[in-house]
Amino acid sequence: MSEPDEFSIIDQLFKPLAGFSREARGLIDDVAVIPPDPDHDLLVSTDALVAGVHFFEHDPLDLVARKLMRVNISDIIAKGGTAYGYQLLTAWPRGLSLNDKRDFARGLKTEQDRFGLTLFGGDTVSTPGPLTVSMTIFGKAPRGRALSRAGARAGDRVLVSGYIGQAHLGLRALQGRLSDLPNGDVNELISAYHLPEIRPDLAHAVLRHASAAMDISDGLLGDADHLARANTLMIRIELDKVPTSPAARAAIAEGVSAVDLMTGGDDYQILCTAGEAGAKALIMTGFYDIGACVSATPETPAGACLFAGGRRIEVTDKGFRHPL
Amino acid sequence: MSEPDEFSIIDQLFKPLAGFSREARGLIDDVAVIPPDPDHDLLVSTDALVAGVHFFEHDPLDLVARKLMRVNISDIIAKGGTAYGYQLLTAWPRGLSLNDKRDFARGLKTEQDRFGLTLFGGDTVSTPGPLTVSMTIFGKAPRGRALSRAGARAGDRVLVSGYIGQAHLGLRALQGRLSDLPNGDVNELISAYHLPEIRPDLAHAVLRHASAAMDISDGLLGDADHLARANTLMIRIELDKVPTSPAARAAIAEGVSAVDLMTGGDDYQILCTAGEAGAKALIMTGFYDIGACVSATPETPAGACLFAGGRRIEVTDKGFRHPL
Repeated sequence: MSEPDEFSIIDQLFKPLAGFSREARGLIDDVAVIPPDPDHDLLVSTDALVAGVHFFEHDPLDLVARKLMRVNISDIIAKGGTAYGYQLLTAWPRGLSLNDKRDFARGLKTEQDRFGLTLFGGDTVSTPGPLTVSMTIFGKAPRGRALSRAGARAGDRVLVSGYIGQAHLGLRALQGRLSDLPNGDVNELISAYHLPEIRPDLAHAVLRHASAAMDISDGLLGDADHLARANTLMIRIELDKVPTSPAARAAIAEGVSAVDLMTGGDDYQILCTAGEAGAKALIMTGFYDIGACVSATPETPAGACLFAGGRRIEVTDKGFRHPL
Repeated sequence: MSEPDEFSIIDQLFKPLAGFSREARGLIDDVAVIPPDPDHDLLVSTDALVAGVHFFEHDPLDLVARKLMRVNISDIIAKGGTAYGYQLLTAWPRGLSLNDKRDFARGLKTEQDRFGLTLFGGDTVSTPGPLTVSMTIFGKAPRGRALSRAGARAGDRVLVSGYIGQAHLGLRALQGRLSDLPNGDVNELISAYHLPEIRPDLAHAVLRHASAAMDISDGLLGDADHLARANTLMIRIELDKVPTSPAARAAIAEGVSAVDLMTGGDDYQILCTAGEAGAKALIMTGFYDIGACVSATPETPAGACLFAGGRRIEVTDKGFRHPL
C-alpha cells in the first residue's frame, strides 16, 4: 500500500486535533475563523523547530511535537496570556513513515489536552530537507493588558520563574560533554532539554504584577539584554541569586562554568521586571529575584550585565544562537 | 565582516515591514497583539513554500516572497475577506547571502504595499535543507459572513474567477515540456506560474452572492471535488465552459491535453457556487459559469466530474499533488 497523501494525513492525524472547535470548522476549509472577543486581545506568536538545528535528527517525534507546543505556549504565558489554539505547519522529509507522523500527532494531542488548546488549521508540505515544524499560536489576554518587553523602569526588580541552565546542561549531556554526574541528575537535565517545564499557572501573576516580561529562549543574559535595551535600562543580574537545580550545582562543582548556564538556551522560564510591591507578590508565587534595573549612563549603557560578589563578570557572547 | 545574525536580520529586513502597525509593536516583542474588532471575524490561513518542491531552487527570492504572499492572500479573498497582516517564518539555508535575504524582504514589501498588509511577527531560523518559507495570514470578514466550502445546494451554479491552467502551462514551459508557442505566450504562462493574479476586488461579490467558495490551489477538478464532497453533492463541470487564455488555447492546439489544465495546480482563482440570482451577479463582476451542483445519488456519488459535449470524461487523477 502506498503512503497516504496530504489529504488523508489531514483526515487521519489532524482532524482529531481540531475536534469540534468552531475556529477550525472541522478542517474542511483552508481558513480558520476566529470570532471577536470584545474583552480580550488576541496574542499571536510563531516558533519553528528544524531537525539538526533545534533538535536531534533521531529524537522521537512525539517529543519534538511536545517541545514545539511548549516553546510556543511559553511565549503566550510570558505575556500574561492563556493559549487556546494553533496553526500548524509540517514539512515532512521524504520517506518519513506514517508511524513517525502518528507519533508527532500524538505528541501534539498530549500537550493540547494538557494545556487546553485545539488545532485551528495549517499546511502540510513535503521537503527534500530535514523535518521542519512551525506553529503559530493564539492566546488571549484581557484587553490592553498583555505584557511586553517594554514597560520596565529604573528601580524595578528583575525576576525569573525557575531554574536556569537546565536545558543547556541537558544538551551538553546529549553531546557527551557532561560527565561525572549521577544518572538521575543527567536524566533530569536531558528531560529539561527535550521538554521544558512551562507554567501557565504563573500567567495571572505576571499580568497583575510585572512591568515587562518575556520568555527566556536564547539564554538568560542575552534575553535580559534585549529586555534592557527595549527599555533603555541597564539590568544587573547577580549570579549568586540566579536559581539553579541541585543537578546544575553538581555540574558546576564538576567544572562546568556557571556563566555558561546564564548564556545557554532553551530555558523557557519567564523573565520579568516589577516594582517593589509587584516583586514581592511575584516571589510569593514562586519567582526568584535575580537583580535590578538601573538607569543607563555613558559608563553603564543599556544592556544586561552579570555580577558576582559585587564584581562585574565580562561575558563575550551573551546569547545563545543556534549553531548554524 | 561576518554575516549578520538573526537579530540584525530582523532589525534590517523585517522591522521596516512591520512599520507602525499596532499589532507588531515594532517587532521588539515575540508576541503580536491583535485587538478585538466586534464587527469582524478574524480569518487565518497558513501556506508554505519549499525550494525544489513549490518553486525552483534558483528562482529570484523577490518572486518567491511575492508568490508566498499571494497564495496566502488568495485564501482570504476566496472567503470574502480582506487580508491585513501576517506572521512570517523563514528557514534560511546555510550560505544564503544577505542580498538574497534582502531580495526576499523587498518582494514582501512590494506585495504588502500593493495589498495593504503589514508584518505582525514571526520566526527566523537556519536550516541545513532548502529554503522554506511560511506565512500565517490574517484577514477580516463581517462577523458570521465568511464563506466556507460548505453551503452549496443542489441546483447552484459553479463559477470561477478567471483563466484555468495558466500556471500549469507555465510550469511545463519552465520544465521544457511546452514548445512551439510564441515567446509572448510562453512568457505570459511562466509569469502566471511565478506570480498568480489575485483579485481582492472580487471578495465583496463573493461575500454577497456565493453560497460556498474556496481558492483553487491544487487543480480545478481536485478542488471542485473537495468542495462537492464537503456538501455531499455532485459537481458537473463543462470543459467547454471553463475559461482559458488565448495562450492556453494555442498550447491545446499544439497537443496539450485540455484535461491537464483542469487538474494542474497553482491557479489561485476563486471557485464558488451560487444560486441563480447570485450567479448572475457574479457573472456581472467577471466570474465564469462552468457547471452545476446536482444531488448525489448512488450512480452519481458526491464529487466533481468533467463533461464535454454531454459526455463524461474519465479523469484518473483529479488533483495536483506536489511531486515529492
